This record gives sequence, structure tokens and C-alpha cells, in this order.
Amino acid sequence: MAQSREVRLKSRPEGVPKASDFEIATVEAPPPGPGEVQVRNLFMSVDPYMRGRMYDRPSYVPPFQIGAAMEGGAVGEVVASNDPALKPGDLVSTMFGWRELFNAPAQGLQKLSPALPPQAYLGVAGMPGMTAWVGLLKIAAAKEGDVVFVSAAAGAVGQVVCQIAKIKGCKVIGSAGGPDKVAYLKEIGVDHAIDYRATPDLTRALAEASPKGIDVYFENVGGAHLEAALNAARPFARFAMCGMISQYNDTEPQPGPSNLMLVVGKRLRLEGFIVSDHFAEMGAFLQDMTGWITSGKVKWRETIDQGLEAAPGAFIKLFKGENIGKMLVKLS
Amino acid sequence: MAQSREVRLKSRPEGVPKASDFEIATVEAPPPGPGEVQVRNLFMSVDPYMRGRMYDRPSYVPPFQIGAAMEGGAVGEVVASNDPALKPGDLVSTMFGWRELFNAPAQGLQKLSPALPPQAYLGVAGMPGMTAWVGLLKIAAAKEGDVVFVSAAAGAVGQVVCQIAKIKGCKVIGSAGGPDKVAYLKEIGVDHAIDYRATPDLTRALAEASPKGIDVYFENVGGAHLEAALNAARPFARFAMCGMISQYNDTEPQPGPSNLMLVVGKRLRLEGFIVSDHFAEMGAFLQDMTGWITSGKVKWRETIDQGLEAAPGAFIKLFKGENIGKMLVKLS
Repeated sequence: MAQSREVRLKSRPEGVPKASDFEIATVEAPPPGPGEVQVRNLFMSVDPYMRGRMYDRPSYVPPFQIGAAMEGGAVGEVVASNDPALKPGDLVSTMFGWRELFNAPAQGLQKLSPALPPQAYLGVAGMPGMTAWVGLLKIAAAKEGDVVFVSAAAGAVGQVVCQIAKIKGCKVIGSAGGPDKVAYLKEIGVDHAIDYRATPDLTRALAEASPKGIDVYFENVGGAHLEAALNAARPFARFAMCGMISQYNDTEPQPGPSNLMLVVGKRLRLEGFIVSDHFAEMGAFLQDMTGWITSGKVKWRETIDQGLEAAPGAFIKLFKGENIGKMLVKLS
Repeated sequence: MAQSREVRLKSRPEGVPKASDFEIATVEAPPPGPGEVQVRNLFMSVDPYMRGRMYDRPSYVPPFQIGAAMEGGAVGEVVASNDPALKPGDLVSTMFGWRELFNAPAQGLQKLSPALPPQAYLGVAGMPGMTAWVGLLKIAAAKEGDVVFVSAAAGAVGQVVCQIAKIKGCKVIGSAGGPDKVAYLKEIGVDHAIDYRATPDLTRALAEASPKGIDVYFENVGGAHLEAALNAARPFARFAMCGMISQYNDTEPQPGPSNLMLVVGKRLRLEGFIVSDHFAEMGAFLQDMTGWITSGKVKWRETIDQGLEAAPGAFIKLFKGENIGKMLVKLS
């Protein structure tokens, strides 16, 4: 019988996750049952939001269970099928990440178009890309002429936010850590790239990048970035609150921005969102994104680690900012 | 020639304003010029937002100037007129508060309907009442069945928020300081009144008042109230950010709530607003409010101090929570 390996959560991390919080298990992979297919994963995704699922607390998704395989986005190839809807060689997108081989009912799987490389459906044309599209256009309602500030701008979501904002005629200020990311931001058309690690005063850096302030903030980071964005906000600015990666590993609650009162006087709108609430618009997103990719208006980067055993380390890299673009693990 | 007295800003307050930050000056009041009327103020308003105008910094209204008479809402009686639009005995609403007698162009003044006592146009039927109406119904979009949490619920704005929320079929939780205010909240139909001064854990008090959480928060206070509201918020809750009176006198920036990250996972919307942006809807507000008052659905309280010399003290009371309902100064 075929065998598979999977990554399980061994212990709930305290602070930044460590390799020892994970374990790799070898399991048997029986042939698919009636109506099932067997899929060999090609790429799996690691995403910052998974950190939240490692806490045992109520949230919008259930917590990961100790001793169980981690879940997450993955793309794979059908290797055996007991359902006419899918045949060997078909590519599918699933949430059965963090494992090499698995069986699943064919009806629940999403078949991928061969128009793009399969791993693009984990990034620019997948959950992170749609997060950018929803947050920028629906939540923040960015429009031509707006000044848009994007934190974690060289990450999986941020790189797409920057480029959609440029397509829509915005001026874009992107923040990222280190010269390589800053160079990448310039490559994708960001007007002002801020290396936050080399910038002692983000408020001042924003004021220099746009003396008149910002109309939109795409929040991926929290902390000093949010405080600076509040300072820079023009009246009626909109903040799409997507994540706060700087705080995901806090073991003690950290104070929020001291200037939150600016929300009143500047009439700001801060709105949190989760992309899965908007999946009904997946078709509209894919139509936009496929068009932009085809016409060369959206580019992307990936950082790819190799092999299932690399998955915990790839996940940990997210919190050290060691990825440019989408962080992926290549499984076969 | 007639004389008038006015309150001037003597020094910019450090922390909580003191009586010595103000001075009273006697000025001459010449007869009104062509097209002008002379008005004797009956009541003047003191409002928390005025604290912001005492700082010398850019904001949505210009700062008060040292040595100049303070401005603010007032209602008065026309005592002399050089314009056919207004005649002696007419009641007008103006922004020439903090003085007894003044001249102004008749065309700029708003004539009051005698349907309500004149000082009601400084409270329930004026700026604070409209602030409640805009914030609750337009910004927070409160609807039947919502659980609405109101801070500073026994204040000029809060008392109106509570009652409009009840009219709209919401469950209302109000927070105020002290047993007198709690008793008043029950009198106006608040479902759960919290005495925050006697409540060590606001998050727990909210959970007890509404185990399922809150759909709307009307923010007047900031600090621990905002943190508790974030904890209590149900998914997609809306926060109308009207003010943060607990912070207006801070001499050092105070940290914001440590749980702001809940905005993302709960998909909260925090939106600041200023009532003057919505003055185009004054007619709709007055129609609603006059109807509610006439049918006995909206009641109100006033705390009235006597004489121009009492104005600084009345203003300072706002920050000590010594008023129930609208804080007013009766001038004649």
C-alpha cells in the first residue's frame, strides 16, 4: 500500500513557533474509495493566518488539533480516480495541505484551469490574491487618485494590493523589510518603497512620501505601522484591516496605537474582513486577475522551499519576513 | 451704551482645564449695524468637543485663540433688529456662545420654532441629539434586534442614543458613572445599566448583560470602554466612533486597546464621524425628533448652571462626569 507523510501539530506554540511544535508522521494511503480520488500534492501553502488556528480559542475558523494533520491550501494532481468528474492528471485545489498524498471525495474538489502554473492558485490567483482584491476594492473602496499605503507590501497579499492599486490609478506607498524587498517593490511599480527596518520614524517617512497624507491603508502588520497610518490618514481615509502579523506571536497583550482618537476627528473607517466571506465573488476576481496576468499588468514572486519536512520552517519564515512574495512548499 | 460680558481663553489647559485657564471680560455692546440684530443669550452650551479646540493643532475646527471669546452653541432672544427677517422677541440659535449680548448679521442666524423650550435646541433637538441620530442610524446602521452598547449613556448624546435605539427595537446596554445616572438610564428604558465606577471588569459586565455579545457600540469614552466593546463585539459589529472623553485631557499619549486585532477576525467596522458633515440632513433629523418628543418617546435631562461666570466650571464638570444629560449655562 502507498504511504504518505503529513505534518501534525505537536504542541501549541508559545510565541514564535518552533520546529519542535511540529512533527512528521508516516501514514498509509489506501486506494481511493467509491466516489473518491487520490491526490498527490504538488505545492502546499503556508500563510500567516494559520498562526491563529494554533491557539485553542474561538475564532472564525476552528483551532488546529494537537496530533492531527495541519490543514491549508494546496494544489495537487489526481493520481487515481473513482469518480468520472476527475481523471488522473487533473489538477485540483484543496484545503488538504501539509501532506503528500490523500484521498477525498471528488465532488468537493476544485479543478484548476491549466491557464496558469498550478501554484499561482495558491498565490496571486488564489486566496492571497483575492484577499488583496477584496480588501483594496471592496473594503477600502480605493479609487483613481487615492494615495494607498500597503504594509508587508512584498508579501503574498501585499504584492497584489500594490499592483491592483497601480492598475486603478492610485499612488502607492509600500513598506517592507530590507533592500531586496524594496528593490522588488520598485520593480512592480510602487511609487515610494519604505524599508521599515531602516526607518526609525514611519510617520515621518509617510509624510515625506506623501505630504498630503494617505486615503487608504491596507493593514497587514499592526503596531507602529498602524500608528503611522493613523497619523498620515487624510479625512475620510479607509483602512482595510486584513491582518496584524507583528502581533500574532505575542505572549502578552501589547498596547494598541496611542493615536486611535484620530479615528473620530478625521472620520476614518477601519474595517476588518476575511476573504472567505466573499467567495461568492470568486468568479469576478478570477476574471479580473486572469486578465491582468495575461496582459502583463500583474507579476508575482514566490519563495519556494522543498519537501514536506521543510514545511514547518517555511511557516516560521513568515514571521521573520524571510519570504518575498508567496511562501510555498514544493512537495513533488 | 449697553455692556456685555464674555468668557475668553486665558491659557491653553494642561490636563484637565482649570478655572484659571479662563477669564471674564466686560465689553461694550454698540447698537446693531445695518442688517444686524442684537441678541441676548438665554442659554449657552458647553460640550466635550470644545476641549479639542483648546489645543493649538490642526483639526476639523480651528483652535480657540488665547484672549478671544470662546465660541459655542447658544440660544438667545433678539432684542434689537435692523433686518426685517428677525424682530425683537424672536428666538435664534447661534455659535456665539460664552457671551451675554452680541451683534450679528441677521441672515446668518437660525430662527427657532417655539415648539420646544429654547434650550432643547442645544440638546436633544440640537447638535447632541443629531449626533446621536447620525451616529446610531447612519454610521452604525443600527436595526431592529441589534444589541447596542452606549458609553457615557447618561450624557447629552448618550441619553438620546439610548432612546432612539429603543424606538428602533434594539436591546440597549448603557454605561454611566454612579447610581443617579444608572437610575436615570432605567427611567429612559435602558435594558441593562452599568455603573462603570462600580464595575472592575467591563468585559465581564457586558458578557453578563448580553451573553451573545453586541452588534453596535456607540463610542463616547475610549480606554477601557473601547477594549470591553471589542471583546463583546459579535462578528460584523459596527462601532460609531463619536468621541473619547476619557482621553481629552491626557498630557501624554495613552496606549490604545490591546485587543484591536479583534477588528480583523470579527470583521468589525469602526467609523469616526462629525455631526457637521451631516447637516444637510438636519430637516430629516428634526422631523424624526420632533415627532418622538411630541409622542413622549424621547425624554431628556439637563444640568443647568447659572450665570456667565459659571461657564468655565460647567465645562470642567463634563470631564468629571458631574452632569446628567445636557450641560447648560443659563445666562438670562
